[in-house]
Amino acid sequence: MTTSEHQHDPHAGAGHDAHAGHGYAADKDAVLARLRRVEGQVRGIARMVDEDTYCIDVLTQVSAATRALENVALLLLEDHLDHCVRDAARRGGPEADEKLAEASAAIARLVRS
Amino acid sequence: MTTSEHQHDPHAGAGHDAHAGHGYAADKDAVLARLRRVEGQVRGIARMVDEDTYCIDVLTQVSAATRALENVALLLLEDHLDHCVRDAARRGGPEADEKLAEASAAIARLVRS
Amino acid sequence: MTTSEHQHDPHAGAGHDAHAGHGYAADKDAVLARLRRVEGQVRGIARMVDEDTYCIDVLTQVSAATRALENVALLLLEDHLDHCVRDAARRGGPEADEKLAEASAAIARLVRS
Amino acid sequence: MTTSEHQHDPHAGAGHDAHAGHGYAADKDAVLARLRRVEGQVRGIARMVDEDTYCIDVLTQVSAATRALENVALLLLEDHLDHCVRDAARRGGPEADEKLAEASAAIARLVRS
Repeated sequence: MTTSEHQHDPHAGAGHDAHAGHGYAADKDAVLARLRRVEGQVRGIARMVDEDTYCIDVLTQVSAATRALENVALLLLEDHLDHCVRDAARRGGPEADEKLAEASAAIARLVRS
Repeated sequence: MTTSEHQHDPHAGAGHDAHAGHGYAADKDAVLARLRRVEGQVRGIARMVDEDTYCIDVLTQVSAATRALENVALLLLEDHLDHCVRDAARRGGPEADEKLAEASAAIARLVRS
Repeated sequence: MTTSEHQHDPHAGAGHDAHAGHGYAADKDAVLARLRRVEGQVRGIARMVDEDTYCIDVLTQVSAATRALENVALLLLEDHLDHCVRDAARRGGPEADEKLAEASAAIARLVRS
Repeated sequence: MTTSEHQHDPHAGAGHDAHAGHGYAADKDAVLARLRRVEGQVRGIARMVDEDTYCIDVLTQVSAATRALENVALLLLEDHLDHCVRDAARRGGPEADEKLAEASAAIARLVRS
């Protein structure tokens, strides 16, 4: 990626080219599908609570939804390293430093969450 | 739950309100409100992804939603110990053993998720 | 447990009777063995770092040691619920409330660590 | 590794000291100091258990040691991205792919531990 006018451009064409300013372009549909599933899981948990389901059964579903969200985060992070960080490192300069510091901070938030 | 088909109701009348059978009766509205908020967070994350928001900004929201779900789990667990486990321990017998083993397994799932 | 003079008594006899003021009496040797193993793992990691071992190989061992420590925590917690919390719940009164609140706080620290 | 047979040394002389081959060269003393501290914490926990310290007090120290280990992992990971991954991305080719996949797998192990 040599030109920079693509960065952060949210809707650069319907096909979401791989350099659309984020790293998950190629996995966008998969990420959206997983998020829809997590949303459904959380709605299902609310229904269980509304119907006074036994605590442990609710907790099992909360653990499953938490794990599913973590997996979404890991996919986003992998794509981010694979595209945004890799491209920035290749170009070098202060942007590379910034992207690397930013990625480390995101990883720390994830590990601590 | 509108009527009296309360499941798991251990000893209604001994200080336990109409929602015995699970431990979060007193916090039910708070749990539901938190779950609705998490559901909204996850839907918001899907919208961010759909609009090609920058990876790190999406990840920050995923970490926040994960933490919010963990807090729901901790509240449910606290209520479960405070009511179901406490009541079972008070009554003793095999039900107490079962409830304690079940709680430990739920805690392990949560710590590992 | 009907008498209370055993509580918190650290060395009530060499055999560490089950009511010695903590809940892990029966698992004490297993807990100690696991902690010695974790100590050895951490010392091994320091040696790897001292010998300039490749980052990823060091990280793999750090993850393993972290998981081993979490498993020690889960065993201690299970024993604590099974003995201290169960006994306090059986006796009732403010001590039961205190023990339950304390256990929930410990679980929260563990989930968030 | 005592002398100069440094593996993985990407381009010694281009700002990389004698410990290239891993990313934590500049933080090596800090990493070692932290690991020694964790080792002392774990030994202290074993002593607490040996002296029959109350479960919750032991658990608090286990949570602290777990968090300290996670912080070591985050420092190692940050250094790894900053050096090994950055250098590999700069050079490109299959080594870059390999380093990025390896880093993502290490992050996943850490998040799940």
